[in-house]
Amino acid sequence: MAEYSVSALSRLIEQFERLPGIGHKSAARLAYHVLSMPEQEAKKFSDAILDAHKKIHYCSICCNLSDTDICSICSDERRDRSIICVVEDTKDVMALEKTREFNATYHVLHGVISPLSGISPDMIRIKELLLRLNNDEVKEVIMATNATVEGEATAMYVSKLIKPMGIKVTRLAYGIPVGADLEYADEVTLSRAIQGRNEI
Amino acid sequence: MAEYSVSALSRLIEQFERLPGIGHKSAARLAYHVLSMPEQEAKKFSDAILDAHKKIHYCSICCNLSDTDICSICSDERRDRSIICVVEDTKDVMALEKTREFNATYHVLHGVISPLSGISPDMIRIKELLLRLNNDEVKEVIMATNATVEGEATAMYVSKLIKPMGIKVTRLAYGIPVGADLEYADEVTLSRAIQGRNEI
Repeated sequence: MAEYSVSALSRLIEQFERLPGIGHKSAARLAYHVLSMPEQEAKKFSDAILDAHKKIHYCSICCNLSDTDICSICSDERRDRSIICVVEDTKDVMALEKTREFNATYHVLHGVISPLSGISPDMIRIKELLLRLNNDEVKEVIMATNATVEGEATAMYVSKLIKPMGIKVTRLAYGIPVGADLEYADEVTLSRAIQGRNEI
Repeated sequence: MAEYSVSALSRLIEQFERLPGIGHKSAARLAYHVLSMPEQEAKKFSDAILDAHKKIHYCSICCNLSDTDICSICSDERRDRSIICVVEDTKDVMALEKTREFNATYHVLHGVISPLSGISPDMIRIKELLLRLNNDEVKEVIMATNATVEGEATAMYVSKLIKPMGIKVTRLAYGIPVGADLEYADEVTLSRAIQGRNEI
């Protein structure tokens, strides 16, 4: 008995299955959804994938993703160029931009130093950051890598390289998330919150 | 302050967000994954979407999805054409094919009658099924629509149309799923299991 298969459909399911967090059943569901779209919509989806690949590259200043040579943040004249906020990836830039309170520029490392995963300092965009510090009149670098072991180690490593240049290096504050119960905060977060306490 | 955006990237995120079960965060994660793919892989993904749309249509016999005019099941000579199994959609065909025990042909309705959602009998592929019954030497029609209210009603409706033609109409057996605990079976399933009991 020949097994039932529609090769174009199984190829599409396979493609969805390669995406992170998508198993076989979800992939099939997504593929059927794409099939049920009007042809025009499917074309738009397909074009968006190719477009993103063709047009997006790294900003030549901050290494963030951009579809222009210099990204919209770096080219914005109202931004304060004396402060650079160093983050792990583009998603972090988006998260910080959502606060609408930060008016400085960014530098995207595209990763963290992680000897266990074989990622050494020269594999992330530290060189590019140091180059910016030589040229620009930067007064402060905010290390905003994640509060993980690797994020922490990367922040330490980078700050040791920058401090001799006479530039102030800061780190995002640790503490209890706004709206969270003390009861459910882990001990490390709590003890950091106590260390970093402020006068009211 | 101009908001940070990479238009090609946000377009891609938007496209992923339109898929069922994908929220904004997942869509962003998938879009970043697509960006990190080698260009060749992205091209393959994009092509798979277009291809599926261009090549897949309904089998002119059983209305199942196919990339040939007549699907691989309908064109398989070893299949028993005297039995037609009527299902709601292509996913059901795939599920039944996985049992590797069913050697007959299918008919895909592409939906169920559902007055509440405004789906009337002429909006699903019942006409096409009746046409097949007129032409072919069909001896049995197995109604394998889902065990839901709509699936049940559709099975009833279709069987009332077919019975006058002198064709046997059957329905899949209801009962306790293999491997399940009696304790956790709902009452309707249990009472159906008792009604449908077999001698051993």
